[in-house]
Amino acid sequence: MNKKITIAIDAMGGDNAPSKNIEGLKIFLEKNRNKEDFSFLLFGKEKILKDLLIKHSVSEDKIEIINTESVVSDKETPLTAIKNSKNTSMWNSVKSQIDGKADITLSAGNTGVLFVISKMILKMMKDVSKPALAGLWPSQKGMSVVLDLGANIECDEKNLVDFSEMGAALYKSIFLNDTPKVSLLNIGSEEIKGTEILKKTFTKLKEINHKNFEFNGYIEGNELMSGKSNVIVTDGFTGNIALKTAEGTAKFVIDNLKNALNDNILSKFSIIFSYFSLKKFKSKLDARKYNGAIFLGLNGPVVKSHGGIDALGFYYSIDLCYRIIKGNLMSQIRENLNHLNES
Amino acid sequence: MNKKITIAIDAMGGDNAPSKNIEGLKIFLEKNRNKEDFSFLLFGKEKILKDLLIKHSVSEDKIEIINTESVVSDKETPLTAIKNSKNTSMWNSVKSQIDGKADITLSAGNTGVLFVISKMILKMMKDVSKPALAGLWPSQKGMSVVLDLGANIECDEKNLVDFSEMGAALYKSIFLNDTPKVSLLNIGSEEIKGTEILKKTFTKLKEINHKNFEFNGYIEGNELMSGKSNVIVTDGFTGNIALKTAEGTAKFVIDNLKNALNDNILSKFSIIFSYFSLKKFKSKLDARKYNGAIFLGLNGPVVKSHGGIDALGFYYSIDLCYRIIKGNLMSQIRENLNHLNES
Repeated sequence: MNKKITIAIDAMGGDNAPSKNIEGLKIFLEKNRNKEDFSFLLFGKEKILKDLLIKHSVSEDKIEIINTESVVSDKETPLTAIKNSKNTSMWNSVKSQIDGKADITLSAGNTGVLFVISKMILKMMKDVSKPALAGLWPSQKGMSVVLDLGANIECDEKNLVDFSEMGAALYKSIFLNDTPKVSLLNIGSEEIKGTEILKKTFTKLKEINHKNFEFNGYIEGNELMSGKSNVIVTDGFTGNIALKTAEGTAKFVIDNLKNALNDNILSKFSIIFSYFSLKKFKSKLDARKYNGAIFLGLNGPVVKSHGGIDALGFYYSIDLCYRIIKGNLMSQIRENLNHLNES
Repeated sequence: MNKKITIAIDAMGGDNAPSKNIEGLKIFLEKNRNKEDFSFLLFGKEKILKDLLIKHSVSEDKIEIINTESVVSDKETPLTAIKNSKNTSMWNSVKSQIDGKADITLSAGNTGVLFVISKMILKMMKDVSKPALAGLWPSQKGMSVVLDLGANIECDEKNLVDFSEMGAALYKSIFLNDTPKVSLLNIGSEEIKGTEILKKTFTKLKEINHKNFEFNGYIEGNELMSGKSNVIVTDGFTGNIALKTAEGTAKFVIDNLKNALNDNILSKFSIIFSYFSLKKFKSKLDARKYNGAIFLGLNGPVVKSHGGIDALGFYYSIDLCYRIIKGNLMSQIRENLNHLNES
């Protein structure tokens, strides 16, 4: 892909916006100063954004600011979003894809509102039954893709097969040289385990002739991070519970470790000797590296950054946008869905 | 309760049975050598059990061995269990409750088989819509009870209300001086979040006049271990996914920590200084302490020990049996269910 990648950023979304967003952008520009294949559209209050770019010595070379005075209110809900959010920085950053000005949209604003707006503006892809929210998940072998993380509380077998195809396409667009290995999240690995919907999905995925991914069957929660499979498919309720439980558990373990290491003078002393190793450990589990949930199934990709993340975290979600467009996400999805229709 | 507690143990169930079971029993007897309010029925091959008691210098004072030659086969499934498992050590250890000889049954054998056999022999309590599998879960404030962990893939609002009442009774029987605080596991804390079944359960639990527990509303996966609530209620599919995901995540974090600390000579050196602190940390997260899942809703309590756990883990499940009978689990459940009928 030699085409230039244009990333539309809602500069006003998330905690500490737009400072955090501009600082994240600065990190991306510094790390990619030798590349020429990208540019940015920033949606937000022009004066504030210009001042921030100057303050952080960011060149406007690859940046176009689209002045947008209105911002999605903190009190907005998905129910009122369509009515109240027109012409906000979030709305316009999504709309820029329809206008042919951007390839992907990034926002750290309200997830529900972003989802409703994106669905309204970009519309669902022809062959997709439901859009899904996909996330990156650390594993013993690197990173996995997990979906749906909460867009759809209830899913049928058609939805879950679509999620498998889209999740595989996403994985392939990020990790170009690796084979997507799809598993269904279940409460046992035997074929007879689980809900009727899971059993039907299992049968369908086994029948399909997968050119673009391997189907690994069921996976249990304790193998989510083993790396055995790298695309884990589930409904939005279960996916959200698993994601939050994993976050809570990691926090619990690390909090207890911190307490233990600060327990007495000797253990505190030990931190000095393990400083660099602990830093590496911390870095591997750093939530910022996994920042960015991707809405799949719309006629254009939208990435949601965590609202409370800092500038480095926002940088990782910009990097994710760049990588998935570079990796041809949309055509990979179309290819996977087409092959589904052929089978 | 001054009555003597009798615990029926399936001595032949689990990996390394019956050695592990007898060694676990020995630990319990040593730790409780000053108490006189309990006795054990051991079901299994008499000759082997007698030899093991002698080998480990365990006095037979508080132990009666009931010779049972037959053992549930490793290949048994819940579907064939009723037909093939009669008069096994597992079967007879459950049946001893019906015969008035024991107050509770403990087995480390096949979970599905134990569940089917227990339901068949003990029958469901009059007012319970479905039995549930409850487990102990570490939290920042101590321990919580979580149910259902996998007995029922699909649950309606009546089931979830019953689980709340039974879970509260279980918590109260273990932690006599603490108030059970019940929450429903969901993907958001607002009333409008979640499935229709969860919303109906929420409304019902709010309406009921709880004498025996507080209702804390919804809880998300990341707060499972915060200790905000100590009885967490969910369907068996979601509960099992959460449990396994938490196990997998804890293992992932700790494996990465171990790798980091063994990374170089300096970090290895640091382990010496943090030895006792890390030991305390390890002890707090020791899965053996939480060993023992409780089948609730039958006319008698059955505890399932993890099959692969060691003697110390088996000891913790014996201790759990002792505590919940001492804490009057069955009458607490009846009281909670009665008050449900009154409201």
